This record gives sequence, structure tokens and C-alpha cells, in this order.
Amino acid sequence: MSLTTPAPAASSLDSFALAAGFQTAATACGLKPSGNLDLGLVWSDAACSAAGVFTTNRVQAAPVHVCRETLAAAARRVRGVLYNSGCANAVTGERGLADARRMRALGAAAIGAAEDEVLVLSTGVIGRFLDLDKLTRGVATLGTPAALRTAGDAARAIMTTDTVAKIAHATFALEGREVRVAGFAKGAGMIHPNMATMLSVITTDAKLEPARLDRALRAAVEQSFNRISVDGDMSTNDTVLLLASGASGANVDDAGEAAFTRALTSVCGSLARQVARDGEGATRLVELRITGGASERQAHRVGDAIACSPLVKTAIHGNDPNWGRILAAAGYSGEEIEPERVGLWFGDRDAVQLLERGLPTAFDAARASALLAEDPAIVHLDLGLGSAQAVVWTCDFSAEYVRINADYTT
Amino acid sequence: MSLTTPAPAASSLDSFALAAGFQTAATACGLKPSGNLDLGLVWSDAACSAAGVFTTNRVQAAPVHVCRETLAAAARRVRGVLYNSGCANAVTGERGLADARRMRALGAAAIGAAEDEVLVLSTGVIGRFLDLDKLTRGVATLGTPAALRTAGDAARAIMTTDTVAKIAHATFALEGREVRVAGFAKGAGMIHPNMATMLSVITTDAKLEPARLDRALRAAVEQSFNRISVDGDMSTNDTVLLLASGASGANVDDAGEAAFTRALTSVCGSLARQVARDGEGATRLVELRITGGASERQAHRVGDAIACSPLVKTAIHGNDPNWGRILAAAGYSGEEIEPERVGLWFGDRDAVQLLERGLPTAFDAARASALLAEDPAIVHLDLGLGSAQAVVWTCDFSAEYVRINADYTT
Repeated sequence: MSLTTPAPAASSLDSFALAAGFQTAATACGLKPSGNLDLGLVWSDAACSAAGVFTTNRVQAAPVHVCRETLAAAARRVRGVLYNSGCANAVTGERGLADARRMRALGAAAIGAAEDEVLVLSTGVIGRFLDLDKLTRGVATLGTPAALRTAGDAARAIMTTDTVAKIAHATFALEGREVRVAGFAKGAGMIHPNMATMLSVITTDAKLEPARLDRALRAAVEQSFNRISVDGDMSTNDTVLLLASGASGANVDDAGEAAFTRALTSVCGSLARQVARDGEGATRLVELRITGGASERQAHRVGDAIACSPLVKTAIHGNDPNWGRILAAAGYSGEEIEPERVGLWFGDRDAVQLLERGLPTAFDAARASALLAEDPAIVHLDLGLGSAQAVVWTCDFSAEYVRINADYTT
Repeated sequence: MSLTTPAPAASSLDSFALAAGFQTAATACGLKPSGNLDLGLVWSDAACSAAGVFTTNRVQAAPVHVCRETLAAAARRVRGVLYNSGCANAVTGERGLADARRMRALGAAAIGAAEDEVLVLSTGVIGRFLDLDKLTRGVATLGTPAALRTAGDAARAIMTTDTVAKIAHATFALEGREVRVAGFAKGAGMIHPNMATMLSVITTDAKLEPARLDRALRAAVEQSFNRISVDGDMSTNDTVLLLASGASGANVDDAGEAAFTRALTSVCGSLARQVARDGEGATRLVELRITGGASERQAHRVGDAIACSPLVKTAIHGNDPNWGRILAAAGYSGEEIEPERVGLWFGDRDAVQLLERGLPTAFDAARASALLAEDPAIVHLDLGLGSAQAVVWTCDFSAEYVRINADYTT
């Protein structure tokens, strides 16, 4: 359960590359009043296998509907993804659906693809219509020298309140060839297990049938994006898209699937932790290790309840070893925990034990406090009920979170 | 659905009285480092019918266990309630249980009751043992002139991070006699439906059999304390106790039960709204009116999801009419809402409609913002699915909440 998720430095963003076979373009088309990058395109000259995982919110944004419909119509073979930040195109009714389809057509025309070969993503404020004039002019720009061509720029164009771009890659050898999995993500507020204002575009140069790609993506998302929470809010737009170009020449079949899924899970996990680490107003990543569960589901749900507790997260922000809030959150998780079996530690190798068989130890408060100040802050709760475990990531909760969210639209 | 819950002024606290037949005493015994009142006793010279409703957290504090055992042993007839703030006596194992029983014995000796005729409540930091020396000296003080004797002082002695004492009363006529229901509550952080760091002691001078009293209390709590949320955190100590002295001479039988339950619900509702209004760092009460539900449970669950959303609560704090967050929260409530049927308004008689059949209206943002700034801020969501409704109360979420909770124990 080790972590290797430093925030990418500017230099790593400069040298970041997607998988072979993919190109990118990004521009600022004016959807963001700030003038920052707000439009991006990732595409391949050849048709790719594609898979998507979407929000389970009952309120789903227009681009989510259109992605589902496109994947169905194209039998999960697509050429690219056009995305914008600055406007979520959510809660926009029939007009929003028409706008998302119009956006898809713009993307298709830009790369010479059929309309049902382009996926679309939008993120930003809910309930506002896409400005199609700006979008049209912006997409036209993507084919000109004015567009930015690096994958790092593509990663920056999807950001909203993110303070850093989130990028990750992994490689592995298959049949003597190197396979690359590389992608980017955005997400800062409205983040909760089952994906929340969380968008990610992941590419690979492996060759996979769509059904295999879909299975690998679902397995990877379950262990990564579905294990993070910033504020317990699940958004209307969450989407993770995975495109496989096959450009490496390496074919992932039954024998290669496990290795591919591992690499993909590693990329998704890194992106998910970067998203949690960059939670609005957050100062550090929090890793909740729940062990001793009767089932993985139990461990996951206990971790979720702790990850969503404002009291736990504010205590961690203040380096306050107020472990009672952690135990209380586990107690209301809906899982049948047995308080008298619970053990609790802060830290990793130099861990301090705070609870033993449900009772407080005479722990060193200064050391416990220092461990909470680390990044990541590691909290390990053992339920003492079985051998199942789950890791859930969240962030601390600062006054800055409130400041950011008190005036998002105004 | 009108509200009449101003925070009690100091003068109303001075003139506050419990129901006939009850006396109070309060003191500062040193459990709070601040030297504020931290020990209180409410008692009757005659045995009372008693009822209690307790936290559903799997982790339950020692006094919760001891209250349950006392109500069972005493067949729900008791003489009084001894309570302290400054220490929750939660997650304290066998020693905590012994301490709570010792506390009960101290209370019983103080009023000349049998041990199983006294209930105990504790609130404060979790995981610390009660200081029995301080408690013993404090209880001894309760019988001396040094103790404070007003019901307002009794209400103050239960406060932790509360900024104001919460008191409420209601009266009604029964068989030509006036029946009084009056009580107090505490609760500021860790507040969530199903009761969270929320303690309340309510008295009445009506005469009721314990089973009837229990039924009335459960009905009242369901419409009041179980309809508030400050931070979604459910505590280990939540308890609402109701004692009936019978001193008014009015007997509540089948004919009087509805009127009694109404009065009790009014008192519980007022206390609950005062608790929500005084949420840690809160600047105003938020009333969520969910109508058009397929069932009351559905309306309640949708209201709960909205009440627990940090994004909604920070937006309200900033007077930001970011209604998309409200709709998104309804969407992840787990209820099968139909976005295209939803209507949303801010305000009461002068309401502004923001959504009509699931689509944004061209509302006046300045007016909508001004309505969110009112206290209470009223948010009305119609699900368009049926005729069931529920009201849920919460508060806005400020940077001050984080400040308060980042260093509670340190």
C-alpha cells in the first residue's frame, strides 16, 4: 500500500506524453472568463477501441448521455474526445442534448471522423448553456498553429478549480513490445466515491477488443476513482474514458489482460490520488487504510464514512489527534462494526497506536499530531473482524475550501 | 411550515422554567478548563414516567448504555437526570461503564433516590475518562447555596461549543388544567439525522404511562431531531430524555395523546431548529422543504442529502444561487428522482423560482441571492412525483466551522 503520487512538476507536465497514436490540441475559446485554456481535443488517426465509466447520479449532464449514446452507436470504436471546461452543460434539458451533439459534430469535422466516432466531455458550472459560438470558433482554432499541441496543455485545458494538472503514465512489456498507458484527469470539488466532478481521459497504445477494454477499465476505476472522496458530493458529469489505439502493435488477449489491468489501475490510482490531494482548499492527501474487515465492501464503506466526515477532515487539517471522530464515523457507516475489536494507528512504519481493542492507549499526542501533519497523512483502522481490506483516499478540510465554494458562480 | 424559533435572548433564559414538579441545580466542577458551567441536575421529588431515544451509532457512549439499562431496570420510572459537559465518557470501555454507574449513584444520593432512578448524560471530547474526583465534588456542591438554581443555568451547563443555550416550551389545556412541556438541548457539531452530538432533557407536568410517553417522544423526535443536520456526523452520545412528573394533575389518556404529542413535537422542533441554527460556525438556519415526493421517506432522504452537502452549504453561506449543487445532491440521494419533473424555489411568500420542470428559469440572480441571505434561508424543492413532503433543517457552512473543528482537542 505504498504511495508514489507527487504532484507533477511543471517540467514533468512539459515532457508528458500520451500513448502512441494519439495527438492533442488545446486552446482558450473564452468559456472561462479568466482566459485560461478551456477546450481540448485528443484524437487518433485510426479508429480506437473505447470504454467509458459514468456518474451514477440520477441527474446526468448532456455530454454523459451523448457519450453513452455514441459508444452504443459506434460499437465502442471511436476516433477522439473533445472536451471543454468552464461550462458543465448539465441540467440543460433538450437544448443541452442538442448542444452536446453539436459539439460532437464539431469535433468530428475537425478530425475528419464520423459524428458517432467522437466523445464529448464538459465540466464547470451546472445549469448554463454551452456558448456554441465560442465553441465553434475554438474548435476551428484547434487545427491552426495557434493551438497548443503538448499533452500537458491538453491536461491543463480540462482543469476548473484544480490548482495543478493531473497526469500519470505506466508502461509494461508485452510480446517484446512496450505498452504505454497515459492519461490526465481533473477534479477538485464535488468528489465522492462513484466518481464526482471528475473527468479523466486515458489513452493506451495497446490493442484490445472493446469488451476487454471495458472490463479492465471497470476493474481499475473500482480500485481508484471510486476510492476517493473530497466532499461527499457526487457530480452530474463524472466520466472516465479510455481509448486504445493499438499503435504499439502489442495485442492484449487473455494472457496479457492482467498486466494491462495492473498498469491501468496504477495510472487510475495515481490520477485519483492527485485529485484527492488537490481537493479544494486541501493541504494534504489522507490515506485511510481499513483492514480486518469481514468483507472488502465493509472495509470500503467504513473508509467512505470516515473520508466524508467533515469533523475528521477538519481535525486532520488542524493536526488534531481527535481519534474519537474517526471511530464515531466508523460507527455510523451502516456497517456492523464491533467497537471493542477496533485498533487505530496514525502513520506508516513509525506508526503510533491510538486505540487497542477499542480502548484509548496512552499515546504520545505530539507524535500523533506530527504524523497527521505528514503528506500523505496515513490513518489505519483495523476492524478486527476478518481479513478484508480497502484503501480510501481523501484530503483535509480547510477554511479555504469554504472560501472557494462560497462564491463559485457569483 | 412556519418557523418561530428566534434564539432565546438572555432575558428569556432568565425567566425560563421547566414543567411543574421539577427542580434544577448547576455548577462548574472543573471538567471544562474554561471554568464554565459543566454539571447539571434536573429532578423531581416524586417518581416520573420516563422515555428516552438514543443514537443509532454502533459506537455508543457509556452513559447511553447506562441510560438504557436504567430505563429497563426502573420500568421507565425515574427521579432525575444528572449530566455533565466537558467529557463524553465515550470509547472508555468497562471503566467508562463503571464511571457512568458511579455518576448515577452520585446523582441518586444527591436527591435521595434509588440508583436505578437516575439517568446520566455526558458530552464533550470522546475517549477520555470522567474525572470522578471533580464530579464527586461537583455533585456535592449541587446541594449547597453555591449551586445555581434557575432552569436557564441548567440549560447552560449542558453546552459545549454551543454559542447560545437552547430552550423551548409549549402549553396546552387538558381537562381544564394547563399542561406544560419544557426542555433544553445542546448540540453544535456532529449533528445529523438520527441524532448526533445532541442531548436534550425535556420535562412535562402531565401524567402519562411510560408506554404512552415513549410513543409520543418517538413521534416527536422523528419530526424534529431526526430532521436536522449540521455536518452529517452522527455522534456516540445522542440522547433525548423526557420525564413526566404529573404535577399538573392532568392525565393524558387516549383522548389527550394527540394534543400532548403536538405540544411535545413543537418543543422538540424548536429545540432542533435552535441546534441547527447554532451549528458550529453557522450564520443562519436553512430550511429545506421537499414536496411532491412519492413517499415521506423519499422526501426526507432527498432533504438529508441536500442538508449534508458541503457544496450546497458553502454556496448558501456565500449567498450564491448555485442551484446545480442542490439538484446534484438530490440526484445522488439514492432516491429515484426524475430531474425533468423537478421545481426549485428560494424564499417563502416572495419566492423566486430557479428550476421549472427540471430546467433553469431566467431568474433574477440578485433576488435569489438576497433570499439565501435571509435567516432562515428557505429552499423548496418539488420532486413532482407525488404528494408526500418533509422538512429538513440545516445551517450554512462557514470558514469558522473549520477553525472551530481543526483544534477541538488540542
